[in-house]
Amino acid sequence: MTSEPFRIGLLGHGTVGAAFAELLPARADHVAHITGRRPEITRILTRSEGSFAEVLENADLVVELMGGVEPARGHVLRAMAAGRHVVTANKLLLSQHGEELWAAAREHGVQLRFEAAVAGVVPVIRVLQESLAAAHVERLHGIVNGTTNFILSEMARTGASYADALAQAQALGYAEADPSDDVSGRDAAAKMAILARLAFDTPVHLDEVRYEGIEHITPDDMQYAEGLGLSLKLIGTAERTGHPAEPGLWGLSVRVHPAFLYPGHPLASVSGPFNAVTVESDTITEITMSGPGAGGLQTASAVLGDVISAMIPPACTPAPSGALAIVEDVASAFYLHLEVDDRPGVLGQVAQILGLQGVSVKSVVQKGLGEGARLVMVVHPVLESRFYAARDLIGALDFVRASPRAIRVIEEEFT
Amino acid sequence: MTSEPFRIGLLGHGTVGAAFAELLPARADHVAHITGRRPEITRILTRSEGSFAEVLENADLVVELMGGVEPARGHVLRAMAAGRHVVTANKLLLSQHGEELWAAAREHGVQLRFEAAVAGVVPVIRVLQESLAAAHVERLHGIVNGTTNFILSEMARTGASYADALAQAQALGYAEADPSDDVSGRDAAAKMAILARLAFDTPVHLDEVRYEGIEHITPDDMQYAEGLGLSLKLIGTAERTGHPAEPGLWGLSVRVHPAFLYPGHPLASVSGPFNAVTVESDTITEITMSGPGAGGLQTASAVLGDVISAMIPPACTPAPSGALAIVEDVASAFYLHLEVDDRPGVLGQVAQILGLQGVSVKSVVQKGLGEGARLVMVVHPVLESRFYAARDLIGALDFVRASPRAIRVIEEEFT
Repeated sequence: MTSEPFRIGLLGHGTVGAAFAELLPARADHVAHITGRRPEITRILTRSEGSFAEVLENADLVVELMGGVEPARGHVLRAMAAGRHVVTANKLLLSQHGEELWAAAREHGVQLRFEAAVAGVVPVIRVLQESLAAAHVERLHGIVNGTTNFILSEMARTGASYADALAQAQALGYAEADPSDDVSGRDAAAKMAILARLAFDTPVHLDEVRYEGIEHITPDDMQYAEGLGLSLKLIGTAERTGHPAEPGLWGLSVRVHPAFLYPGHPLASVSGPFNAVTVESDTITEITMSGPGAGGLQTASAVLGDVISAMIPPACTPAPSGALAIVEDVASAFYLHLEVDDRPGVLGQVAQILGLQGVSVKSVVQKGLGEGARLVMVVHPVLESRFYAARDLIGALDFVRASPRAIRVIEEEFT
Repeated sequence: MTSEPFRIGLLGHGTVGAAFAELLPARADHVAHITGRRPEITRILTRSEGSFAEVLENADLVVELMGGVEPARGHVLRAMAAGRHVVTANKLLLSQHGEELWAAAREHGVQLRFEAAVAGVVPVIRVLQESLAAAHVERLHGIVNGTTNFILSEMARTGASYADALAQAQALGYAEADPSDDVSGRDAAAKMAILARLAFDTPVHLDEVRYEGIEHITPDDMQYAEGLGLSLKLIGTAERTGHPAEPGLWGLSVRVHPAFLYPGHPLASVSGPFNAVTVESDTITEITMSGPGAGGLQTASAVLGDVISAMIPPACTPAPSGALAIVEDVASAFYLHLEVDDRPGVLGQVAQILGLQGVSVKSVVQKGLGEGARLVMVVHPVLESRFYAARDLIGALDFVRASPRAIRVIEEEFT
């Protein structure tokens, strides 16, 4: 690697800024493999230290993670005017001054990327701007605030009051000491303004988004929801609707409020501090994307994705570094279904063979009697070769009346 | 618009090709707004008509929707050698000759895009290549074959046998007359080879993917799954695992097989002909994307997204065309919770007010007695202003003992 390093100036060193400053060096080799240049942070501007002019002078790209409108707005505008690409996670800035910033990016021929501004690592900005650039979007629903989704999930799960669930969220770091931006729906409204702008090709200012929060939700409402199999979520909606003044023309409604979701809705099963967005259009039916909505590392990861995109020509699949060997034999949990004669000692012999092959039984059910007797069990993860050896030995036992049936079982990894 | 049209040569005119040829002119104005050039199909090569040389001569970009390895491979290579960008949906070609094609794209400095090759309109290729370019992926699970997911969903829903569910899938157009590529797992294996290549930066050939199909799944297995709250899906897995020969090094396992999923798994609720992919990594936790896995229009929509990306400089947010007015008053369904005195005539008066405002009741439950009496109802969608007018009138009735509580209800749109 003889080419110059790719110089990044970082504005802001809070939770996300610090996580990005740690993540970048850890992934710099891999980024160099993809892009041909090694990224490095050359200067950091914090609240107390650094000079913006110096950051700018030493940067090919500026990452803005300060939050708030000023001085972030001024810095981003100056950086773009100086020909620098900008990556930002600033939803408040974009929901109020987006048109000014996007126009500046077009004028100066630079990239302004902002995946991390909405739904953390869920790639909804990229998908709306690129995959769905030509889709005629009808409606977009989003769970775009992790704090309120956590609080509502806790209320549903434990029957807790709003106040108790909020205290729990604060204790776990999912809500801030002053939670009003989250629980009032204002944070979600800012994100919906950005999503609606992209999905419907219409300028949307934060002030044009109606929002209601979750402060008035009671355990009573939750109980009602549970009785009917409904989930209660803070939902952002942006959809085409009738024009307010001119019949026959289309208008756009953008709003955030609590809403009950019927069980089949793609957002109904999104729980805890997760975010998710569903986009509906006649040409795509619907797409749903979900993932963690916040967290320093996750948000920093979204910022890094934007940085790499700004560094590379599009749609170039890099040559593989090819470090991994292909593996055939892996560990899996299995369901094993045996048709057996109904006589003493059957379970003992099966268990013995499993034990000799190192296969450990998690649960077993004996069903039926006589000719219809069955042993159905689930075993803990074990190398497939060991499991199949046991299965074949069991299949050869005289009391096993048909070929054993085995199907893998996948357990939850993240909870 | 005075600039030259953007010329597209189309190879193949089957289901997806025909859908693309219809979708493109319908969205051409919008694409011109985004990119500054109006796309048009200049030549089409079908099985019986057209010449490849002539397609190439009249194209800035070639869309390959022929399927199969040859002559598609030769055409794509020739197009890239001639400096044309290529968009393809050909999973069989990429899973067997991907490295050759990607190397050719790098060599000739052109884009080779293939979103539609895996999971239809679900933007998993773009997200892996761009958003997650620097993520250290640990594991990827996918439901990447809609035919088998439909069959298994039908077996679970109705208790049907495999043969009957397959016949049903064929009748509805979700399975082909010869379904062997789908039900054997081979189609899913080709898609997993492509996903694993991108997620793990390692060349993966279709022949290196182990696969099992769903032909041997019985209603018995389904019954067992239902009893434990499990879902049975055809799951593709690609994950880091121990190196087969060298302890301490990493290897890669890529495989497709039926598997039971525990209820909390993000893929457990994906039903019918849908596809979904979950990507796990320490820096992102997990991302899940889902949507229709096939369908001519949906796949054509993914192709169009790729075409637009090839046409525009990256991350340029176009100026809004701004046709939509922001609407405040929209129609919503509501839950309405009333604390009322327990006396005759209460429900009648409430119903009368609702009726006068045009609010139609979908369901109502009367709960409790005396001081704790409650009326809980759900009303059909109605303009929010009408609903709130009714709510305020009801709140002023003397037998209503606390402010009425209203929460919106969102019903399923796509089923």
